[in-house]
Amino acid sequence: MTEYIPPGTRFHALPSPFPMKRGGALHGARMAYETWGELNAARDNAILILTGLSPNAHAAANAGNPAPGWWEEMLGPGKPIDTDHWFVVCVNSLGSCKGSTGPASIDPASGEPYRLDFPKLSIEDGANAAHEVVRGLGIERLACLIGCSMGGMTALAYLLLHPGSARSHINVSGSARALPFSIAIRSLQREAIRLDPNWNQGRYDDTHYPENGMRMARKLGVVTYRSALEWSGRFGRVRLDSDRRDGDDPFGLEFEVESYLEGHARRFVRQFDPNCYLYLSRSMDWFDVAEYAPARGPDEVLQALSRIALEKSLAIGVETDILFPLQQQEEIAEGLRLGGADSRFAPLPSPQGHDAFLVDIPRFGDRIGGFLAELRPPPRRGGW
Amino acid sequence: MTEYIPPGTRFHALPSPFPMKRGGALHGARMAYETWGELNAARDNAILILTGLSPNAHAAANAGNPAPGWWEEMLGPGKPIDTDHWFVVCVNSLGSCKGSTGPASIDPASGEPYRLDFPKLSIEDGANAAHEVVRGLGIERLACLIGCSMGGMTALAYLLLHPGSARSHINVSGSARALPFSIAIRSLQREAIRLDPNWNQGRYDDTHYPENGMRMARKLGVVTYRSALEWSGRFGRVRLDSDRRDGDDPFGLEFEVESYLEGHARRFVRQFDPNCYLYLSRSMDWFDVAEYAPARGPDEVLQALSRIALEKSLAIGVETDILFPLQQQEEIAEGLRLGGADSRFAPLPSPQGHDAFLVDIPRFGDRIGGFLAELRPPPRRGGW
Repeated sequence: MTEYIPPGTRFHALPSPFPMKRGGALHGARMAYETWGELNAARDNAILILTGLSPNAHAAANAGNPAPGWWEEMLGPGKPIDTDHWFVVCVNSLGSCKGSTGPASIDPASGEPYRLDFPKLSIEDGANAAHEVVRGLGIERLACLIGCSMGGMTALAYLLLHPGSARSHINVSGSARALPFSIAIRSLQREAIRLDPNWNQGRYDDTHYPENGMRMARKLGVVTYRSALEWSGRFGRVRLDSDRRDGDDPFGLEFEVESYLEGHARRFVRQFDPNCYLYLSRSMDWFDVAEYAPARGPDEVLQALSRIALEKSLAIGVETDILFPLQQQEEIAEGLRLGGADSRFAPLPSPQGHDAFLVDIPRFGDRIGGFLAELRPPPRRGGW
Repeated sequence: MTEYIPPGTRFHALPSPFPMKRGGALHGARMAYETWGELNAARDNAILILTGLSPNAHAAANAGNPAPGWWEEMLGPGKPIDTDHWFVVCVNSLGSCKGSTGPASIDPASGEPYRLDFPKLSIEDGANAAHEVVRGLGIERLACLIGCSMGGMTALAYLLLHPGSARSHINVSGSARALPFSIAIRSLQREAIRLDPNWNQGRYDDTHYPENGMRMARKLGVVTYRSALEWSGRFGRVRLDSDRRDGDDPFGLEFEVESYLEGHARRFVRQFDPNCYLYLSRSMDWFDVAEYAPARGPDEVLQALSRIALEKSLAIGVETDILFPLQQQEEIAEGLRLGGADSRFAPLPSPQGHDAFLVDIPRFGDRIGGFLAELRPPPRRGGW
């Protein structure tokens, strides 16, 4: 079992026991996080970023770790999330393997990794754990809560479970609940891992590791993270040169798009713990804000979202996203508007599908930066 | 190795040797087919149906086999493809395992199944083999060539390789070449089969059969054959009753959509030969009408299609198809128009995705039936 913790990661000890939504509790658990910028005296310039399934807390270079982060172009001095103005926190998700406690961590009760003995993980558990980090930093109220992809779900849970904990919210390619197409994709990814004989009911090690299952899961992920439109332009029907093919394998890689998937898969395998992947993936399928609606019914999602009180919100996504389709961001915007927020919906024409927020920084940065700039108090009132 | 041949199937012996596009030749090969209706004296009322990857030749009930076929509601007396007027032929694809020669068939050179010794299979080989069946039935010119999904590719190859062989063409949810998203999906399906230890480089048997690989491949197929829109309405987030779950498996089936996929997979596994699946799947990735263009370039697909001379054509598809997206049917319509056909493009709003042609018979039947009715000579000129 391996955890993958970037240098410079900071840790926050969770209350022990830390109760989990579906039963059980964690003992001696911790959250990994990083920060950028300075918290002001009023403690009202904080932004929390909640990530998708796989990223660590290293969203961008900082003093503790100068290596570029997964949102490097979005976050930093003068960038859309401008760390000259904002104190930014990014947490590694509870249940992950990049510093926060998860199935790959040591269970203090046994001295062995939790593996499948880790309690059932819900999106709400990740929200509560992230809230503990924010409180631990002395922040009563976030200026903005930003959640991307899975983090968009976690952010909605955070806002529902901790009323008044944020002035504003940016939901980036997120959703208020998992729909069956996305559930089907994630179910197949989990099945690919579980079918790998090396998974062995979660009892693998570095020598006997479910590499094929993880490769398949990641490839299927990448297929659904991007878009057919982008790939048609990017790869077309281009073949690999013969020296990049295995001439002995009649069904081996032949097209550039196959090689692209293989490259992505190889970079992911052994960089993410398979059991953690299973737990986080399943938590997304389970998440449903409708659980927070006053009553079940056709408008249960909107009714649940309307319980969230914010000054301003932005729901942003792209037309080419098949995993978190644009209608789900529109639904979030509509629900938050019902709750009284000055709620914006920003559908973007990015061709890169669900991953667009990671790569189409010009479009996403413009919207996110503009939203945050409006949040700042006008300079004439005295600045920060 | 098992072949799955419906009762009442008829066979046509292919010329021996039967040369294959990418090298090698088949000896003693045959094509399975079925027919409906009567060929008229002028032999000008024949329709050929070319199928998607997995169907057999039993498109509908007939005298030889009263069981319902895979296009039962589309084909028969008084139905959209009206067998009171048309003589209809449907072939099982070359390379399949449902009567036509394929990798599961016995190689006369060895007395053993071909397995991976089957020659490389191209869409064009399937087109040539289907053309042999039609010629063998004494038909010089089809009234209409209908191709669905993979069969839409085969139909375009047929028309390019055998000029003048059809008056008209209906391309149903087909494409002029595989695009990278579809290639990626099929590549993953093949990889799932090949990674199953029981695949064993194609040397499986009924006892050691790559069941998990085939289940994964089929599930991934079904995910891409339908649409997120349809599933949201059909399954929502409905859970399985507890008695339909495996309570001991923490990652077992939980949502209806997962059970739906599992059911589809179980019905497919051991009903289709894994090596045949690999060969047919790869043939789709390879197919590209641009090979028939006078010159390569940005309009190579249209230029190639414009070499096909037809009286009339119909390209039909649905907006929710992610595997053979609607733009590909529009492209076919445009190319056939350049070739001089009275070419129609019928985008349909069916929510069922790629599979809509199999299930949304009201919409597809209306268009296909209307097209065929216009092909018939007016009764006042003497009838058939």
